[in-house]
Amino acid sequence: MADTPLATWRDGPTKDAVLDFVRRTCGEDGSPPVPVEERVAVFDNDGTLWCEKPMPIQLDFILRRLTEMAEARPELRERQPWAAAATGDLGWFASLMTAHYAGDDTDVRTLAGGILAAYAGISVEDFERQADTFLRTATHPTLGRGYLRCAYAPMVELLDHLTDNGFTTYIASGGGRDFIRPVSQDMYAIPRERVIGSSSTFTYTSNDVGGTITHRPEADYLDDGPEKPIRIWNRTGRRPLLAAGNSNGDVPMLEFTHRPDAPTLRLLLLHDDPEREFAYTAGAEEALSRAKTDNWTVASIRNDWTTVFPA
Amino acid sequence: MADTPLATWRDGPTKDAVLDFVRRTCGEDGSPPVPVEERVAVFDNDGTLWCEKPMPIQLDFILRRLTEMAEARPELRERQPWAAAATGDLGWFASLMTAHYAGDDTDVRTLAGGILAAYAGISVEDFERQADTFLRTATHPTLGRGYLRCAYAPMVELLDHLTDNGFTTYIASGGGRDFIRPVSQDMYAIPRERVIGSSSTFTYTSNDVGGTITHRPEADYLDDGPEKPIRIWNRTGRRPLLAAGNSNGDVPMLEFTHRPDAPTLRLLLLHDDPEREFAYTAGAEEALSRAKTDNWTVASIRNDWTTVFPA
Repeated sequence: MADTPLATWRDGPTKDAVLDFVRRTCGEDGSPPVPVEERVAVFDNDGTLWCEKPMPIQLDFILRRLTEMAEARPELRERQPWAAAATGDLGWFASLMTAHYAGDDTDVRTLAGGILAAYAGISVEDFERQADTFLRTATHPTLGRGYLRCAYAPMVELLDHLTDNGFTTYIASGGGRDFIRPVSQDMYAIPRERVIGSSSTFTYTSNDVGGTITHRPEADYLDDGPEKPIRIWNRTGRRPLLAAGNSNGDVPMLEFTHRPDAPTLRLLLLHDDPEREFAYTAGAEEALSRAKTDNWTVASIRNDWTTVFPA
Repeated sequence: MADTPLATWRDGPTKDAVLDFVRRTCGEDGSPPVPVEERVAVFDNDGTLWCEKPMPIQLDFILRRLTEMAEARPELRERQPWAAAATGDLGWFASLMTAHYAGDDTDVRTLAGGILAAYAGISVEDFERQADTFLRTATHPTLGRGYLRCAYAPMVELLDHLTDNGFTTYIASGGGRDFIRPVSQDMYAIPRERVIGSSSTFTYTSNDVGGTITHRPEADYLDDGPEKPIRIWNRTGRRPLLAAGNSNGDVPMLEFTHRPDAPTLRLLLLHDDPEREFAYTAGAEEALSRAKTDNWTVASIRNDWTTVFPA
């Protein structure tokens, strides 16, 4: 156990709330400790464990794949999302997110269709190799650091502190489960079997080399909003004691983190540090409002963290 | 670690194959040990870890629920599967399985529709309480022992031996995931998060008591046949080193247990002991044939086990 837990968190009410929650879970306040097997903590990934601006890391990965496809098949350059990818038209992707926040998912569906087509027929092992290579070699477009070093150091420290206190940590991401898995152990000390996230459906094909699982061009589910508590249940069979998120898509997961008989912590990360990271609340309005009415703990990147990224 | 591993397995080639596999995985033969995190073992449940005759344990649970429904709503007594349940017509359920093995799933779909209707709208917590109470109180119809003591003692001993040697054990059942979860720790020392199985889809409903997840009358997937390797991948992100099953529905899972760079064990349980358990191969023809051609290890209940059930 670290001598000074959460050293990268500034002293204050947020850090106190986190440390108090862990102490109460362990019975250090004199109450009965929560059984170790019930100490489940779930973390959103994009914007909660790693940086999601100026675009989600997985979008960078997908853009490169769409560009490759458009180079190989020129007819795709006439269609979205390949046209935007091939011409570097990031505005199309930005406007898609703006429309999404306003409730219009037309272009999101167009992008999703492109993504699903981009990996149709690929084996899970080949997809893993592509994601692994990308995440270990590509550089963040504005921070100038490798993606592997774009995790928030204070959140990694929180994961470690929870593990030190008997918690089992899970990622519950809206992003692709199999995109995160190859690096979750190295970035977060979370093994691949504890990564929950979105997925396509798969086909199993029998053969004499152990069968092959390949991606089908069809979403199995998008692990966001009300799907998050369902996927957490499917994977863990439990209600978490701690959930951390940063956007409206995390509201049901934080709400689900409710136990009348045990301490719980709902942690919402506020991106308010344009100097060291980014400042934005678009897509987090409902979450911030619920944090106020439901007494969730809001962690301000600017005020509560002494550092943001690993040195 | 047990002093004499697999004490309930008779000395002979099957026991040797299992013990040799574990030793090779751990590098005790001088080869490099397989990293602990890769030591994944998956077990079918019905007929592999617990008894599935004269009917699957979950069918007994469902029959009681269907009977209750038919008592409360007499109009249901005119329709299958409620008619068969209410009149104790086990022949209808038996013929359904016979037709299933012959490739006709008409009545299987009728039963599945009844099961899905039987739990529509129930919360996951209420379902858990019902399954838990049933499994801890009901008695096997012919063996005269509680269901909690219908697990095969030699298989539980194998699970323990694997755990002692750094393996992570999973259940990969065609039966209901949430039906098995309440007892998996007590019966098998497998925690609920390592139970893979069939499931309905769910709805998440927001409320001020932490939200509620309820069963929808729609199958999410049936975890059998080619779906088993897919669900194992989804949960673990790995190919197993060991898979154990007893029927045709386990063939893809055993086939998927293939690693050119590590030892693997494909274990098929043969029900050939009418004295101590049951004797049947219906529904296992393809699996037994593959065991021969692909050199899978067949464990005979009659010959390889000194005991079947816990004392």
